[in-house]
Amino acid sequence: MALDTARNLVADDLAAMEKKMQKAVGDAYDPLADALGGLVRSGGKRVRPMLTLLAGRFYPPDDHEKLISLAAAIESLHTATLVHDDVIDGALLRRGHSTLNARWTPSSTIMAGDFFFARAARLVAETEHPRVIQMFARALEVIVDGELRQAFSARDWSQPKASYYDRIYGKTAALFELATRTPAILGGAPETQEEALRRFGYHLGMAFQIVDDILDFVADEATLGKPAGSDLRAGIITLPLYFYIQEPERQAQVIEMMESRPTGDPIVDEVVQMVRESDAIDQALEEARAFVDEAMADLESLPAIPARDALADVARYVVERTF
Amino acid sequence: MALDTARNLVADDLAAMEKKMQKAVGDAYDPLADALGGLVRSGGKRVRPMLTLLAGRFYPPDDHEKLISLAAAIESLHTATLVHDDVIDGALLRRGHSTLNARWTPSSTIMAGDFFFARAARLVAETEHPRVIQMFARALEVIVDGELRQAFSARDWSQPKASYYDRIYGKTAALFELATRTPAILGGAPETQEEALRRFGYHLGMAFQIVDDILDFVADEATLGKPAGSDLRAGIITLPLYFYIQEPERQAQVIEMMESRPTGDPIVDEVVQMVRESDAIDQALEEARAFVDEAMADLESLPAIPARDALADVARYVVERTF
Repeated sequence: MALDTARNLVADDLAAMEKKMQKAVGDAYDPLADALGGLVRSGGKRVRPMLTLLAGRFYPPDDHEKLISLAAAIESLHTATLVHDDVIDGALLRRGHSTLNARWTPSSTIMAGDFFFARAARLVAETEHPRVIQMFARALEVIVDGELRQAFSARDWSQPKASYYDRIYGKTAALFELATRTPAILGGAPETQEEALRRFGYHLGMAFQIVDDILDFVADEATLGKPAGSDLRAGIITLPLYFYIQEPERQAQVIEMMESRPTGDPIVDEVVQMVRESDAIDQALEEARAFVDEAMADLESLPAIPARDALADVARYVVERTF
Repeated sequence: MALDTARNLVADDLAAMEKKMQKAVGDAYDPLADALGGLVRSGGKRVRPMLTLLAGRFYPPDDHEKLISLAAAIESLHTATLVHDDVIDGALLRRGHSTLNARWTPSSTIMAGDFFFARAARLVAETEHPRVIQMFARALEVIVDGELRQAFSARDWSQPKASYYDRIYGKTAALFELATRTPAILGGAPETQEEALRRFGYHLGMAFQIVDDILDFVADEATLGKPAGSDLRAGIITLPLYFYIQEPERQAQVIEMMESRPTGDPIVDEVVQMVRESDAIDQALEEARAFVDEAMADLESLPAIPARDALADVARYVVERTF
C-alpha cells in the first residue's frame, strides 16, 4: 500500500504523536477519559498528521517536539470537527463503528467536541510560534465558515461549481494546507518553499474531498462505515451530483424526486444509482486527478529527500484508494 | 449604579472592543452575519472584558490594541460557551430574549458556537504572546472540563461541597481569572502583581457564580430571563440546594420529590419555594460575600489608581446586584 511507505518513514513521530494525544485525553475527567480515549485510539488513517510530519522533514524545526505538538494539534482539530459533524449530520456510523453520538447525548457530544478544540488550542500553543498559532486560528474560522456554507446551501440545486469548491476548501483543504504549511513556518523554510508545501496541501485536500464525495455515491455501506448517499440525503450537492444535474432533464427529474415527494431512503438510493451509472462519476474523478497532478507539480521545487517521495505516494493514494 | 463608574472609566476601550467584535462577525457568511451580529450586539453586561480592560490599566502593554484584542477574545470565548450551553441546557430564554437556539436548529447553533471559538482563537492570537495564548487554551480546557463535570454529577445528591466549587471554577471563575491575569502578563507586570490580579479574578468569579446560583432560586422569571430553578430542573446541585439538603430529613424529601415522581415543573417550583424560604439562601450568600472580601483584599497590593477603585466597585456590584 502506498500509504504504508509514507507511514513507515515517520512511524516514530506518529507514535510520539499518538502518545501525546492519549496523554492529553488522560487528563480529562474520568468518566469521559475512556470515551475520548476510544475516540483517539479509533483514530482513522492519520493522513493529516502524517502530512505534517512528512512536511516537517524538509526544514526541521530546532525543537522536534514542537513538530509533534503541531501534528497532534492538527489531528485534535480534525477530531473536534468530526465529533461536532456527528451531531450536525446525524450520522450514526463513522469510520465503521458507532460514534460518540450514538452512545452519548447530543449535549455530551458537543462538549466532547469542545474538549478536542481545547486540546488543539493547547497543543498548537506549545509551538510558541505566533504566526503558526494565528494560521491555526484562521483555519478554524475557514472550517466553521465551510460548515455554515454547507448548511445554508443545502437543496440549492442551481448553485455554481464554485460554491462546491468553496465549501470543500473549508471542509477539508484548509486543514490539509495548514498541515503541510505550518511545519515549514516552524522550521523557518524560505517563503517559496513554504508556499510550495501550502499549495501541495491545498491541492491534495481538494482531491481528497472530491474522492470522498465520489465514494459517497459508488462505495458500499461496509466500506464507507455509513450508508451511501448521506450527503444527498442531507440535501448537500457534491461534485458527482453537480455534474449529473447539469443536463436540464436530469436536473428536473432529481428536483422532482427530492422535493416533490417525501425524501425517504428509497428515493435517495434511486438517485444515487442514477448518478453512479452516469458519466458524472468519471467527470468528478477527472477533476480529482487534475488536483493531484497539481499537487505532484508542487513537489517538484522541494528538496529531493525521501519525504518528498512519501508525499507523492500519499497524493497517489488519495485518488487510488478505492478505484 | 456601581457598575456604571467602572464602565465609564474604560468606555472608549469597551467601544473599541465592541467594534472589533462586530468586525469579526461582519466577515462571516452573510445569512449568518445578521444572527451572529445580533448575538454580539445583545451583549449582556460585558463584565468580563470590563475586568480585562480595567486590569490592563495597572501595567499597560506597549501595544494598547493587543489589550483590546484580548478583551474581545475573552468575551468571544464567553459567547461561544453561552451558545453551546443553550444547546446543552435547552434554555429557550437567556438574557431576556429568545436565543439563537430557539430560532435555529441545534446544528446551526453548534456551528455558531464553534464560530465564536474560532474568533476567540484568532483574537487571542493577535496578542502574539505565547504565555497568554497558552493560558487561554488552558482556560478553555478547564471550562469544558467544568461543563463535563456538571453533566456527570447531575442528580448526585450526596456530592461534597468541593464538587460544587470545582464545577463553578470551571464554569465561571476560570474565565474571570483569565480576564484579570492575562492583561498583567501582556503588560509585563511583576509576578506578585500578576498573582494579585489572578486571585482577584478568581475570587470574584466564584462569588459571581454563587450569586447567579442564588438568583436561580430567589429571582423571578422576568429578572432571570428564564424560569427559576433551571439548574434544579436539570438535576444540577448548586450551593443553596447543597446547604438545604445537609439536613437529612430535607434531603430525603428532596430526593423523594425529584426522583420518585416524574419531575415536572410543579415539583421543581415546590422545591425552589422550600429552598427560597429556608436559611440555605443566607448561608450561600455568606459564602459569596466571603469570596468578595477575599477579592477586595487581593486589590490592596495593587497600585492605588482609579482602576483599582473601579475593580472594587465591580466586586461590590457582584454581591449587591439584586439583594
